[in-house]
Amino acid sequence: MVSRERWESNYPRWFDWVLEEAEIYDYGRYPVKGMGVWMPYGFQIRRRVVELIRDALDRRGHEEVLFPLLIPETLLRVEKEHIKGFEDEVYWVTHGGLEPLDIKLALRPTSETSITFMENYWIKSYRQLPKKYYQIVSIFRYETKATRPMIRLREVTTFKEAHTVHDSFEDSERQVLEAIEAYKEIYDSLGIPYLISKRPEWDKFPGALYTIAFDTIMPDGRVLQIGTVHNLGQNFTKVFDFKIQLSDESHDYPWQTSYGISDRIVATLISVHGDDRGTVMIPSIAPIQVVIVPIPAGGDEDRVAVTRHVARVLKVLEEAGLRVRVDDREEVRPGAKFYYWEARGVPVRLEIGPREAREDTVTLVRRDTLEKSIVPVEELPSTIKRVFEEIYENLKERAWNYMRSRIKRTENLGEAKEWVSQRRGVAEVPWCGNDECAARMEDELEAKSLGTPWPREDATGSRCPICGRDAVTWIRYAKTY
Amino acid sequence: MVSRERWESNYPRWFDWVLEEAEIYDYGRYPVKGMGVWMPYGFQIRRRVVELIRDALDRRGHEEVLFPLLIPETLLRVEKEHIKGFEDEVYWVTHGGLEPLDIKLALRPTSETSITFMENYWIKSYRQLPKKYYQIVSIFRYETKATRPMIRLREVTTFKEAHTVHDSFEDSERQVLEAIEAYKEIYDSLGIPYLISKRPEWDKFPGALYTIAFDTIMPDGRVLQIGTVHNLGQNFTKVFDFKIQLSDESHDYPWQTSYGISDRIVATLISVHGDDRGTVMIPSIAPIQVVIVPIPAGGDEDRVAVTRHVARVLKVLEEAGLRVRVDDREEVRPGAKFYYWEARGVPVRLEIGPREAREDTVTLVRRDTLEKSIVPVEELPSTIKRVFEEIYENLKERAWNYMRSRIKRTENLGEAKEWVSQRRGVAEVPWCGNDECAARMEDELEAKSLGTPWPREDATGSRCPICGRDAVTWIRYAKTY
Repeated sequence: MVSRERWESNYPRWFDWVLEEAEIYDYGRYPVKGMGVWMPYGFQIRRRVVELIRDALDRRGHEEVLFPLLIPETLLRVEKEHIKGFEDEVYWVTHGGLEPLDIKLALRPTSETSITFMENYWIKSYRQLPKKYYQIVSIFRYETKATRPMIRLREVTTFKEAHTVHDSFEDSERQVLEAIEAYKEIYDSLGIPYLISKRPEWDKFPGALYTIAFDTIMPDGRVLQIGTVHNLGQNFTKVFDFKIQLSDESHDYPWQTSYGISDRIVATLISVHGDDRGTVMIPSIAPIQVVIVPIPAGGDEDRVAVTRHVARVLKVLEEAGLRVRVDDREEVRPGAKFYYWEARGVPVRLEIGPREAREDTVTLVRRDTLEKSIVPVEELPSTIKRVFEEIYENLKERAWNYMRSRIKRTENLGEAKEWVSQRRGVAEVPWCGNDECAARMEDELEAKSLGTPWPREDATGSRCPICGRDAVTWIRYAKTY
Repeated sequence: MVSRERWESNYPRWFDWVLEEAEIYDYGRYPVKGMGVWMPYGFQIRRRVVELIRDALDRRGHEEVLFPLLIPETLLRVEKEHIKGFEDEVYWVTHGGLEPLDIKLALRPTSETSITFMENYWIKSYRQLPKKYYQIVSIFRYETKATRPMIRLREVTTFKEAHTVHDSFEDSERQVLEAIEAYKEIYDSLGIPYLISKRPEWDKFPGALYTIAFDTIMPDGRVLQIGTVHNLGQNFTKVFDFKIQLSDESHDYPWQTSYGISDRIVATLISVHGDDRGTVMIPSIAPIQVVIVPIPAGGDEDRVAVTRHVARVLKVLEEAGLRVRVDDREEVRPGAKFYYWEARGVPVRLEIGPREAREDTVTLVRRDTLEKSIVPVEELPSTIKRVFEEIYENLKERAWNYMRSRIKRTENLGEAKEWVSQRRGVAEVPWCGNDECAARMEDELEAKSLGTPWPREDATGSRCPICGRDAVTWIRYAKTY
């Protein structure tokens, strides 16, 4: 294993460093605060993550759509709680060319209002339900908190928002479960560990009945929200007067859910699988899965043999459907090449020198452990396939173990406070179910409540540390992003 | 062949009808003028077209990136000609939350300025060149002309813009050729016919040395620009003071090109392959390639046999990797189903009734010709493959023949004027090469000049109809969108 000391002790700087060093995302030079540029290598990571999300939704009957970016102020204001939640952070377009616009246009902060507005035209009957739409778009929030690349942006460039419609509350509850299953599948494919919590009443999505959130713990002990699922009830359909015909011929407002994943999924992927040399890519996502580094040694004859052997190995790998790059830059030494590709997290490196050429082998180096082995070329496709599987399992297990080690369940508020204030991670304490006690604990712990474990976990026998009454469940606290 | 009378005589309404009937794009109901919604079926068409574009660029060494939507006013104003060309049609963000912004932010009308700004950080040496970036994004133009769905929008949701950097003028010229080849390949795959013209001096891209454009002729005889390629020279690199080291160790401003394709590619795809029943999808792009319509007839036994046969055929087709839909809606009659899928342009329909079940066949109907044939199930995969090829060739040939029939080359300005004013299509007349004569012809013909054929076509022996001097080439005129 590569050391993770710098990664852990200095995570925020490590993250900035890896984004720059691996040419993933150029942040801070673009002349608008809170907005960055996806560079080619980063874009390829993002693209594969997006494909994974699409696939998980498409297989569950979701249909992709694309709505306009601009939402008229009048539309955004229809749902009162909703606009209250976003009002302070909406960007407004006020002019077209040199003329002022009649109605101000918002850069979408999220699309519940515009989608419900159009659903009202499209959906007339329970026969069309359930309906599951999604889009992958940019959203904009005029953040006043300190911005962070990919984590707290003013333009979130990768917002997957799903919006569903149902003919009963029960079916919307089933949809919440389906969304959670889809998200679990997505994060599991990426080896990203998560905690699922039902958010406290005061921290739910503006306009929702309730919000279920996926969080992860970053190397600095702070919690990052990486996905949310909302049951919207009939809040939006009522204010938009959107009714459908039900199976008993009556008419009623349908039920909705919405759920989203943002750029943070890529930030997390890069972060949780990092070490002091850079990030480590999950092989299925890696833009480059195998890099071949020729090792120049010996005389002209050896060099020719190496070049020929590299070509042979490349052909074998490409025929096996792998994404391979040969780094044959003459002006760069092998050591610098190793460093370069390690920062980018390429899962497997093959070193090829005169000996490998002679023996028809390669020296294979795993990025996660840096273990070396000699592999005959004929066994290469099957060996790499196995190594990819091992890297994935190893990264996933390591990330889960790391996250679990940072969760402390305790009935003692002092212990919880110490855990949280030292940025160790998440503290879980017993809770009576009373919102006031939960809010009091936020103050005492100087931390934010993530809410209660989902599915709900029993805390029988424990007492709420605030009021002393019997606890009904646990509640989570942490320093958050 | 299906009649194309309504398609041709009433094209603009036909287009609106097909977008609605086939549930491709909802336009006119969204409460911001010039902005529409990609519905699920339309989104799938768009998605496959986008994949085709990506593939053509990736194979030619282009790298996909993603830049912020918002461009500060100061940045957009750096190149004087450029901002002059866009000033009247930029949307401006002036407020974040309730606060006014220090610097107005433009919704990108195109990205030359922001990309050149960042290239200045990224590219230092000729060794990194040529560099070819592209992104697929929304762009915004506050159009004052009448808006049209997918054709003249205020939010263009599918703008593929490529931006390249070179160490010499010669290499930028080579890049222009590569871009043209890539675009030819893309339009050819879609069977879309095109005319390539070098735009007149006064109609080039703001800030470019020259512009090469792809146009097509729509069924109403008007010309639609569907792609442009610009040689930007050193205009942008100079104003951004972006210099690189050359191979002789000197420093100079690099050369750039840019080229774009928009939503119009989808509008054209739907339009040029249309007929009175709707659109006809090129099989490689069709979201649904084969629709199976069970024909209920006979008694219970027959119905069971049909259901079983449908399942068998579906399995055979899915195993062959085809995108298949079974339309088993009970409440809809077969005739209505035919109409429904014909509007959407599904290339092949399979009708399955008791006879087909008995004989282990299907009745196959081609969307383009409506020809019927009986095909044994065992031959189905190979037959469909052949039929797809035939449909593609047929659609492509028909579209090219149609476009060619609408181009008239004449030395007689009166004839040219009649051709253009009757909306027959494009008139080509001889030209001396003098811009003033070309502008005079625009007035006389009450038409817009598309510029000269690319590659240049000789017109020796003909005379410019304005000044009477020897013509050096031909020049094109048409009514345009």
